[in-house]
Amino acid sequence: MDERTALRTLAAELPGAGDDAAVVGAQVVTTDMLHDSTDFPAGTTRYTAGWRAVGASLSDVAAMGADATAAVAAYGAPTLDEDELRAFVGGARDVCESVGAEYVGGDLDTHDEFTVATTAIGDSEDPVLRSGASPGEVVCVTGALGRSAAGLRAFEAGDVERGNDLFRFPPRVASGVALAPYATAMMDSSDGLARSLHQLAEASDCGFAVSWDSLPVHDAVADYAAGDGDEREMAAYFGEDFELVFTVPESDLAAVRAAVPVSVTVVGDVTDDAVVADGDPVPDEGYTHASDE
Amino acid sequence: MDERTALRTLAAELPGAGDDAAVVGAQVVTTDMLHDSTDFPAGTTRYTAGWRAVGASLSDVAAMGADATAAVAAYGAPTLDEDELRAFVGGARDVCESVGAEYVGGDLDTHDEFTVATTAIGDSEDPVLRSGASPGEVVCVTGALGRSAAGLRAFEAGDVERGNDLFRFPPRVASGVALAPYATAMMDSSDGLARSLHQLAEASDCGFAVSWDSLPVHDAVADYAAGDGDEREMAAYFGEDFELVFTVPESDLAAVRAAVPVSVTVVGDVTDDAVVADGDPVPDEGYTHASDE
Repeated sequence: MDERTALRTLAAELPGAGDDAAVVGAQVVTTDMLHDSTDFPAGTTRYTAGWRAVGASLSDVAAMGADATAAVAAYGAPTLDEDELRAFVGGARDVCESVGAEYVGGDLDTHDEFTVATTAIGDSEDPVLRSGASPGEVVCVTGALGRSAAGLRAFEAGDVERGNDLFRFPPRVASGVALAPYATAMMDSSDGLARSLHQLAEASDCGFAVSWDSLPVHDAVADYAAGDGDEREMAAYFGEDFELVFTVPESDLAAVRAAVPVSVTVVGDVTDDAVVADGDPVPDEGYTHASDE
Repeated sequence: MDERTALRTLAAELPGAGDDAAVVGAQVVTTDMLHDSTDFPAGTTRYTAGWRAVGASLSDVAAMGADATAAVAAYGAPTLDEDELRAFVGGARDVCESVGAEYVGGDLDTHDEFTVATTAIGDSEDPVLRSGASPGEVVCVTGALGRSAAGLRAFEAGDVERGNDLFRFPPRVASGVALAPYATAMMDSSDGLARSLHQLAEASDCGFAVSWDSLPVHDAVADYAAGDGDEREMAAYFGEDFELVFTVPESDLAAVRAAVPVSVTVVGDVTDDAVVADGDPVPDEGYTHASDE
């Protein structure tokens, strides 16, 4: 069973699962497990790992339109080196502070492989689910796509400092909170835009018609992409970008742009069914390493 | 750096750390990472693993005198087998239901070693810390000690069904809530009674004088212990028992016993300094695998 099938199994067992975070009363809670071999390329500092791991959970809180309040992390490593631990905690704390949340600690475990499990909680009276999109609305993304794909290429090219910089993404908590009154459906782009569209389409029973040229592409992508096809791969399929993908009525766009502190780009329309780009089907592919509830 | 030293480092970095759970507003939050090689003996079912892993976090919530509301788990395994996953979720859900909390899902990860990270949250307006014990009070434990030590021996003896049964301990959430108005200091016995006493002594700047004969020992210990010394090792040092260790004024004992739904045993007195049993120093030893905030 691959992770997608397993997630469906889990969702069937747990009616509350299947969104970026679970709803508990007026709160949301989300957890993620990351580990060395799949999530932290060689050269990733422990500071970056702390920022990124905790940031991934903060992003899930943001994707619900909730205000992140606190995060914890369980840290497993072969040796518990003091400098590495301090660096990790520093990254975890700084990413929390960047969104107004509190990093309140965690657990330590001696583990063969560097493994981090993070949990974030947030407040929301009325969380935004994946299931509210309606045909006629527009689909948008915050910020720019492809940042993590570029970061991975930077690590692979030996540009460790740039890789670390690109991997420390800003979780869109302020944007998520600002979008909550407007967004009809929302999730983050952690599995890639293509998969996000398919997941929103499935949850909302709708389709999407997007235009490849409309995609906001991160500046760093051009430095590493081998042509237009590769650029699209990095921006639309690779994922792990932690931007927000959401739907709104077109009439709310001006208000949305005024409220959200980062750029908002319309990438297409909500339709009755099928996910297409420039008229062609968009394969439901991307980074299948699970990072959702 | 061993886990104890590392936890001290973490506590110094994070003033909120150092208790069984972190306090965030009127809530507590705690996380734990468990994995195959150290926490789940051969024969542990996935149902038991789900119960025990989530139960460990619920126990940390209980140790704060907080009412557990929800838990999540990140599940990492080499293969995501559907039956195993359903069994794990069943155990996680059942242990939550047993304490009136909601299991709201988690994350899945393909991981070389079976690894589980759990997080629980709970409500408390006035959490019980480790730091409030005063000389003249008594120190007590809920239930009976040595259950997990006996469980491990059962697994080692090939009595897999009994091992699983003993490993599915009841988290003392109802007891923790009932104790909150009375307990001056509290933690769980997950590192063993001996270490719990030392940690309470350090946090409260006090000592303890206990009597070995007063310890409530789980019935199953006698089936596996090789003599009195071994029985003490299993009950006082092995840990992983998830009973509550707490201090109260002796004048509150009757009210405590009336309020707490399980047995409460006085094991000794709070003193000015040193941790002794029958007049001899109690070594600060136990299960050093970290499971605290």
